Amino acid sequence: MNVAIVGASGAVGQELMRILAERKFPIDHLTLFGSKRSAGREYLYEGKPHIVKELQHNDDFKDIDVAFTSAGGGTAKEYAETITKYGAVLIDNSSAFRMDADVPLVVPEVNAKDALERPRNIIANPNCTTIMMVVVLQPIERLSHIKRIHIASYQSASGAGAAAMAELQQQYKELVETGSVKTINKFPHQLAYNVIPQIDVMTPNDYTKEEMKMYNETRKIMHSDVRTSATCVRVSSLRSHSESVWFETERPLTVDEVRQALASAPGVTLEDDPQHYVYPMPLESAGKDNVYVGRIRKDLANDNGLTLWLTGDQIRKGAALNAVQIAEYLYQQGDLK
Amino acid sequence: MNVAIVGASGAVGQELMRILAERKFPIDHLTLFGSKRSAGREYLYEGKPHIVKELQHNDDFKDIDVAFTSAGGGTAKEYAETITKYGAVLIDNSSAFRMDADVPLVVPEVNAKDALERPRNIIANPNCTTIMMVVVLQPIERLSHIKRIHIASYQSASGAGAAAMAELQQQYKELVETGSVKTINKFPHQLAYNVIPQIDVMTPNDYTKEEMKMYNETRKIMHSDVRTSATCVRVSSLRSHSESVWFETERPLTVDEVRQALASAPGVTLEDDPQHYVYPMPLESAGKDNVYVGRIRKDLANDNGLTLWLTGDQIRKGAALNAVQIAEYLYQQGDLK
Repeated sequence: MNVAIVGASGAVGQELMRILAERKFPIDHLTLFGSKRSAGREYLYEGKPHIVKELQHNDDFKDIDVAFTSAGGGTAKEYAETITKYGAVLIDNSSAFRMDADVPLVVPEVNAKDALERPRNIIANPNCTTIMMVVVLQPIERLSHIKRIHIASYQSASGAGAAAMAELQQQYKELVETGSVKTINKFPHQLAYNVIPQIDVMTPNDYTKEEMKMYNETRKIMHSDVRTSATCVRVSSLRSHSESVWFETERPLTVDEVRQALASAPGVTLEDDPQHYVYPMPLESAGKDNVYVGRIRKDLANDNGLTLWLTGDQIRKGAALNAVQIAEYLYQQGDLK
Repeated sequence: MNVAIVGASGAVGQELMRILAERKFPIDHLTLFGSKRSAGREYLYEGKPHIVKELQHNDDFKDIDVAFTSAGGGTAKEYAETITKYGAVLIDNSSAFRMDADVPLVVPEVNAKDALERPRNIIANPNCTTIMMVVVLQPIERLSHIKRIHIASYQSASGAGAAAMAELQQQYKELVETGSVKTINKFPHQLAYNVIPQIDVMTPNDYTKEEMKMYNETRKIMHSDVRTSATCVRVSSLRSHSESVWFETERPLTVDEVRQALASAPGVTLEDDPQHYVYPMPLESAGKDNVYVGRIRKDLANDNGLTLWLTGDQIRKGAALNAVQIAEYLYQQGDLK
């Protein structure tokens, strides 16, 4: 298998390299691509040096079987034709193609088969907060149709990239050393000791793009008419997002039914013993593969509702891992090469 | 007016002194009380030194007109009789008496008159997250009855007291200086760079006490059958809590109706221009009196619902300020002395 990573120097690009190696994805040849700025950088993959090539409109993708792109929506759109024209499957991490009718939007635990129908040979990797939520909700959907979702997120700096994580650390360093924050570039406001109720830009209905992704992508992935209202919030953790989720089902479910469904669900780890201070937290799910779920209980405001708390690593399951799992599925199905 | 503060050395006690001075509460004599440990400490009030007396079962409250207690539920219960027996009005900040049928639970903007009916001469100050929420929801309740509330909180270290705030700062100091956290005493887990989905202990239905306070206290203060499901979460900010709130009303309300009602509501400041990055944040509401509201929009999952985001200083409106406002109301009504 010849594999390409576009955006190799970014937080997700670096995680893609780690995950491909960890999971022993059958790679004959790995090619790293990046912007003009990052071209020439060298990274080790399985102990061997790989030099980042500049992404250009040429025939570099002629022998590539699968290309992971994590370089923003603009780059993805501009280079999709270049990447796919000789048959490479493009698995894109941006929001550029997610809602296109002829591009499948895939979370393998939920709708793996959608990846087999891809008229443009593009598969979209969903938004991180949506991926984590649907991995947990799909096993519940099988018990009874989910009609409504309310979700408040607690998103880490990692969602804005490696430089944003460094900025948050820098802000705390400045606070400890000088008592005030000087560096505010990656977020619209100081994030240290703060909470910012905005992720991505606003849309006309006063929901942010991030919040509307949760509405639209959840419907597409789950093939559902579910209605979602999300408030997406940045908090001052480094890595791993958390979500407080309420959902209403067609028939009332018990906590035990839901807990059993989640205990055996792929990609999910139950961590639900709050009487002993056990529940998912971002500090502990960072760097791990699964989505962690706890605090499962009845919704006191809705007889057909339940509520739960989930945490997952935004860079792994929320991005790089999910993309690699899509490629693994295609490979297992004999659909790559 | 002779005023007493019990628990004068705590975060709320100190804030009570500041607020009484700021608002020029008509004090003839201020007496500070504390535990054996804090007895003897000296604090300035209006430039004059006041020494903390040890709280004891004696006649110290004989000439007191109003006593603010912020010393925990155990102390409040133990000393209520001692404090009130000669006629002092006790305004207690703990949860000890809040749900007692013969103790009014008061947020002046919502149910001030309840403070006039107090068979035991005790008035309870509600839980901080509840105070902030009802100040915002009561003007909406007047437009149409609120039937359900879903709320996810983002609560600062201040909710656990001054020592907890210092511990969070210490954790970031240790991270900056040594790369790891050593000091974990006030919270069940490391809070720096983390999010902890538990505040107070668990109850049998797997909601925490803090979450059940929001359910029960909201009903009592608003004289309502509203059903509330809350997830209360500690985040790593120092002061000021935030809340993401969804509410369903009997008739569907427009965003404009709600915005207008809140624009003229007492104790509320509208800060709702997200297109220009304007919305409430804990870093900015810290130290201020009002509850700040923004991100008002339709609930995409419920035709009769809306959602909003609010932030308020937990030590001021969430505790000390609300208590002083209760005393001011009694004074204005000629009901003190």
